[in-house]
Amino acid sequence: MTEMTKEDVTAMILSAKKQAGLTWEGIAEKIDMSPVWTHSACMGMNAFPPAKAEALTKALGLPQEAASVLAESPTKIWEQTVPTDPCIYRFYEIVGVYGPTLKALIQEKFGDGIMSAIDFDMQVTRVEHPKGDRVKVEMSGKYLGYNSW
Amino acid sequence: MTEMTKEDVTAMILSAKKQAGLTWEGIAEKIDMSPVWTHSACMGMNAFPPAKAEALTKALGLPQEAASVLAESPTKIWEQTVPTDPCIYRFYEIVGVYGPTLKALIQEKFGDGIMSAIDFDMQVTRVEHPKGDRVKVEMSGKYLGYNSW
Amino acid sequence: MTEMTKEDVTAMILSAKKQAGLTWEGIAEKIDMSPVWTHSACMGMNAFPPAKAEALTKALGLPQEAASVLAESPTKIWEQTVPTDPCIYRFYEIVGVYGPTLKALIQEKFGDGIMSAIDFDMQVTRVEHPKGDRVKVEMSGKYLGYNSW
Amino acid sequence: MTEMTKEDVTAMILSAKKQAGLTWEGIAEKIDMSPVWTHSACMGMNAFPPAKAEALTKALGLPQEAASVLAESPTKIWEQTVPTDPCIYRFYEIVGVYGPTLKALIQEKFGDGIMSAIDFDMQVTRVEHPKGDRVKVEMSGKYLGYNSW
Amino acid sequence: MTEMTKEDVTAMILSAKKQAGLTWEGIAEKIDMSPVWTHSACMGMNAFPPAKAEALTKALGLPQEAASVLAESPTKIWEQTVPTDPCIYRFYEIVGVYGPTLKALIQEKFGDGIMSAIDFDMQVTRVEHPKGDRVKVEMSGKYLGYNSW
Amino acid sequence: MTEMTKEDVTAMILSAKKQAGLTWEGIAEKIDMSPVWTHSACMGMNAFPPAKAEALTKALGLPQEAASVLAESPTKIWEQTVPTDPCIYRFYEIVGVYGPTLKALIQEKFGDGIMSAIDFDMQVTRVEHPKGDRVKVEMSGKYLGYNSW
Amino acid sequence: MTEMTKEDVTAMILSAKKQAGLTWEGIAEKIDMSPVWTHSACMGMNAFPPAKAEALTKALGLPQEAASVLAESPTKIWEQTVPTDPCIYRFYEIVGVYGPTLKALIQEKFGDGIMSAIDFDMQVTRVEHPKGDRVKVEMSGKYLGYNSW
Amino acid sequence: MTEMTKEDVTAMILSAKKQAGLTWEGIAEKIDMSPVWTHSACMGMNAFPPAKAEALTKALGLPQEAASVLAESPTKIWEQTVPTDPCIYRFYEIVGVYGPTLKALIQEKFGDGIMSAIDFDMQVTRVEHPKGDRVKVEMSGKYLGYNSW
Amino acid sequence: MTEMTKEDVTAMILSAKKQAGLTWEGIAEKIDMSPVWTHSACMGMNAFPPAKAEALTKALGLPQEAASVLAESPTKIWEQTVPTDPCIYRFYEIVGVYGPTLKALIQEKFGDGIMSAIDFDMQVTRVEHPKGDRVKVEMSGKYLGYNSW
Amino acid sequence: MTEMTKEDVTAMILSAKKQAGLTWEGIAEKIDMSPVWTHSACMGMNAFPPAKAEALTKALGLPQEAASVLAESPTKIWEQTVPTDPCIYRFYEIVGVYGPTLKALIQEKFGDGIMSAIDFDMQVTRVEHPKGDRVKVEMSGKYLGYNSW
Repeated sequence: MTEMTKEDVTAMILSAKKQAGLTWEGIAEKIDMSPVWTHSACMGMNAFPPAKAEALTKALGLPQEAASVLAESPTKIWEQTVPTDPCIYRFYEIVGVYGPTLKALIQEKFGDGIMSAIDFDMQVTRVEHPKGDRVKVEMSGKYLGYNSW
Repeated sequence: MTEMTKEDVTAMILSAKKQAGLTWEGIAEKIDMSPVWTHSACMGMNAFPPAKAEALTKALGLPQEAASVLAESPTKIWEQTVPTDPCIYRFYEIVGVYGPTLKALIQEKFGDGIMSAIDFDMQVTRVEHPKGDRVKVEMSGKYLGYNSW
Repeated sequence: MTEMTKEDVTAMILSAKKQAGLTWEGIAEKIDMSPVWTHSACMGMNAFPPAKAEALTKALGLPQEAASVLAESPTKIWEQTVPTDPCIYRFYEIVGVYGPTLKALIQEKFGDGIMSAIDFDMQVTRVEHPKGDRVKVEMSGKYLGYNSW
Repeated sequence: MTEMTKEDVTAMILSAKKQAGLTWEGIAEKIDMSPVWTHSACMGMNAFPPAKAEALTKALGLPQEAASVLAESPTKIWEQTVPTDPCIYRFYEIVGVYGPTLKALIQEKFGDGIMSAIDFDMQVTRVEHPKGDRVKVEMSGKYLGYNSW
Repeated sequence: MTEMTKEDVTAMILSAKKQAGLTWEGIAEKIDMSPVWTHSACMGMNAFPPAKAEALTKALGLPQEAASVLAESPTKIWEQTVPTDPCIYRFYEIVGVYGPTLKALIQEKFGDGIMSAIDFDMQVTRVEHPKGDRVKVEMSGKYLGYNSW
Repeated sequence: MTEMTKEDVTAMILSAKKQAGLTWEGIAEKIDMSPVWTHSACMGMNAFPPAKAEALTKALGLPQEAASVLAESPTKIWEQTVPTDPCIYRFYEIVGVYGPTLKALIQEKFGDGIMSAIDFDMQVTRVEHPKGDRVKVEMSGKYLGYNSW
Repeated sequence: MTEMTKEDVTAMILSAKKQAGLTWEGIAEKIDMSPVWTHSACMGMNAFPPAKAEALTKALGLPQEAASVLAESPTKIWEQTVPTDPCIYRFYEIVGVYGPTLKALIQEKFGDGIMSAIDFDMQVTRVEHPKGDRVKVEMSGKYLGYNSW
Repeated sequence: MTEMTKEDVTAMILSAKKQAGLTWEGIAEKIDMSPVWTHSACMGMNAFPPAKAEALTKALGLPQEAASVLAESPTKIWEQTVPTDPCIYRFYEIVGVYGPTLKALIQEKFGDGIMSAIDFDMQVTRVEHPKGDRVKVEMSGKYLGYNSW
Repeated sequence: MTEMTKEDVTAMILSAKKQAGLTWEGIAEKIDMSPVWTHSACMGMNAFPPAKAEALTKALGLPQEAASVLAESPTKIWEQTVPTDPCIYRFYEIVGVYGPTLKALIQEKFGDGIMSAIDFDMQVTRVEHPKGDRVKVEMSGKYLGYNSW
Repeated sequence: MTEMTKEDVTAMILSAKKQAGLTWEGIAEKIDMSPVWTHSACMGMNAFPPAKAEALTKALGLPQEAASVLAESPTKIWEQTVPTDPCIYRFYEIVGVYGPTLKALIQEKFGDGIMSAIDFDMQVTRVEHPKGDRVKVEMSGKYLGYNSW
């Protein structure tokens, strides 16, 4: 008997979501987490805190074993060094074009260091605009200064 | 006689900035543009509107020819497919980990399409926090829906 | 029970097309869309508007579930960074040889910006010619000027 | 004494163009060639027919030796397998997304073969549009059917 | 029920060839085509003209459906950018070492252009030689001159 | 004082060839070697036999030191894993499409082994043809059977 | 019914070897071939001479069909451009560090040419040594001089 | 004043070797080291023991500073992941084809471990053979067993 | 009947570990090995000494055949040249940033040589710290000096 | 007049170190920092705190301008995705072989997170050992747990 994997649970979630006609925003609300985190952890790219894993399992009617799988630390793998999907590529392009600018301004405002991608959160919102609505992405990460020793 | 290039002007700007003890924020203020845009265009990754190119040239005491160079359309080239500098890499990592999430939420909120990286702006700010100050990055891009025909 | 995927529906379409002796042009006509769009969406590289997904499902006698699959946003993935098929490679070669030229002329005619690949359409036609008929490819994309802020 | 190279002549053309305030369209008109071809050959990606090389040399006041250099067969090299400049990348993306569609429709209309990228021409035009002007790119290449023997 | 693919037909041909003790030269003779073409099309890298597809299907006793599969346009894919098999690598090496020479001599004899790989044929023969027999490969492709416009 | 390099000699040859209005075929004749070999060795991709190096040096009026440089064993380097120049790419494409066929026929005619790319020669000729002249490339390499021990 | 492949036969050999408690050296002795060749051909990287294929089939009690499979010419494929296994990587490293040295000494001793990897054999032996036993690898390949023509 | 580099010293050695008409074997003899080591260290891929560095400096009449440069630890860099020169490529091919065999036999004779590429030596010799002389390469490296802890 | 593979045994271990609620530290203790080694060998990246393989098999209640599989020499393969998982990437980054420093200090303290990755061990411990606990990684490898000969 | 760069200062440091016969350990002592940090920052891979930059400048007699350059935030770039130098490669190999183990043990001891490579320090020491001295590398980095939100 093979163990249930993160891929199995992702497939169950997508199926339950479709059948129940839910949105990611709706699912996130049910477990009182943000939509970005919820989607990412459902895709197996983050580990749910145990209580949230339980809550999601109940909310979507998944088998009990799914809760422990959702709480496991994933190995984060992406297979395309340069993403081909246009929606994702545009973010890669932003890093290519504005990466040195992000670095220069972080250093100007904080000193020699980085923005953490671990102690990190992100929001995506829709902003109305007369010339066409806009996607707003807000990232927030803890500043970490390089150690010297 | 060789033409002045964007690289030449970038070197002049960095030198003038150092001698005058300016910050990117300070330079941006002088020409009434945002620091992100100002740095990016000074690095030769964006083209200044002609009036801003003139303003920058005066503000930093660059030779007159620099203004027309700053206003030229650049060819945006980055040489590292995967950036090695840790500060820039963290943003690449965010795209790798959260790219599919960004895509899913944009589609949930808008339909099948992307966030433009052209009709786009970005801010970087320092946010105080008791457990360590945080870097806040705000991106805003126009939603573009796929055409069907 | 596993969900029906875009790959499944593509296989059904190819099978139905072969058995009915249809062409892509013929299928496109049945649903009143262009052949380029129709083929691309049937291959799972674009999402059909729901009404068109319904129309295609009926026209080819696909199972009802196929319609919702055809209307889902796809993740656009191509696996060959440099395509090997000679017919596709020739277009890659055109981008390699004429890419800087396309950029220079777009900037000359419009300013600093790009041709959108999202608000975009394309036609392929056969043009008779005494020295051998020619393939005509017409692309049209909205001009998007870089924002400055 | 080193020979004049294509790179040297390209630099001279760019300098003469800037000083005379010319456009590519204007230069093309002077030598009665299309702007796409003219730009491409000035960049050293195509060889001018000798008479056109002479005409360009005169029109821009280049040294006489430039004419023979402009008429030499270039070795066409591009260094980025995936172009990073957003304006050029969008065309790469179109090949990635629509490459299999272009192939399928060429085969449906002509048989098993390709569109030549050698016996080929291209136009770029600006098309007015109430929702924003559009870039129109028209490619035309001779159909070449695979030989069987 | 899944469609018969080119891979399926290739496997059938290899099996029939082995059981009947045939050579590629023998199979080619039966359908009055060259061995190079015949092998290539049997491997799914070229499309048989319909009459030849029928002839092959009969000659090898393949199921009737195979004929239409053999006549379909293939997508030509090779997975190794640099081939590892020594017999194939040597040809890659020849292109690496002599590629610029082939280009220079084609241009000297014809003008600025290429040898077509589409309107193309090839023969492989064994040539006796006192110091060890030699492989002779003869390629013939139509010269295509670059268009200027 | 730096040594004369193969690159230096190649530049001298190209300059002398241009000034004397010679062709590769003409140069090859002067030293009684084939044009393919002559071009390749002039480009620094092969080593001239000492007598031929002397003959070339005299025929083109190169400095005496050039002869010993032309006779040195070169390190054969090509920088593009996949060549971008269309004329050279077509040969790469032929290896990709027909590589397995070349292997299969060499094995059918000789046994398990390869065609040598070292004990090797090649000719390029122009063949008149009513539908457009053709490039003929003839390669001949010694068959080498795998050793077993 | 699918054909037996080289992979199938390799699996059978490994299984038989394990059950009979044999070594590669022992298997090689049974068929009077060297251990290097025997292992390589059992892995499907070389073709056994028919008599040896028969001998191995009998010695290990493989099904009769295995003999003809073992005698087929393999396509030699390795999937890692840079091998990751430390034992294999060290040999890659030796080629990287000493490759130019091997080339220089072969040229000094023989002239412009190579050591054949086809007319080639290799031995691996254990050499006792007071400071720790040593692996001895002996390669022998026919010198092939470049042809000039 | 810039420091003398390993590249500078390599150039001096090559020049001195050419003017004195020496071979690598001859140079090696003068300093009582093997030709493989001597060439490798002269190329800057290994560090001479100080006494040997002195001896070489005297033997070739290099400036005194060269001795300390020859004794420095080099950073071993090779730029081609897959070497293109045919003489070096053949060794890469041997690692690709026989790498798993080398590993299997080392493990059979020694246990789980590797052949060191550091505590390592190599010889190249010419072996006469009636069917054509052969290159013999002998490598010897200390066996290192994996630690378990 | 197919042989049990290292992958099979890894899956059994993970399943037994989960059901018994064990930690790697706990498993390591049971067989009196370190946690780093134990995890690595359970993942199939190292070979257990036979007695330890037996002990593990008993401790976790695996089938008897597992013991011999655990003792086999693995082929160490990793598929991502640059690891994407953030926890593993940080170590890759450390090698990129501090690699030349590690080399310089090893040479200063020992001479021209390396730290062995074969005669090697490693510990991971948690160190309490008022500003946040720290991960301590201790590596120890035998110094190996380059041979000269 | 061009600005002094980090490369310039690195060259000055190496020259001063050689002339003064210093070691990295000795230089580090003079400025009361660790040797790992000191070397890394001298190589331009880290930024010295201003006081340490001043101290180093005085200790080595560098021009005053060097101090401000040493204190600038560097862009950390390494050019070899897989390092070729054997001493550095061994650390890359350790990450490849033990990366998943490091991840598993960090998660077992701390939870879902990483070891920081920013709030990080490292020591290299020589440890005497009867069977050959050993290199000891100690890394210490702050544990960072993934945020959930």
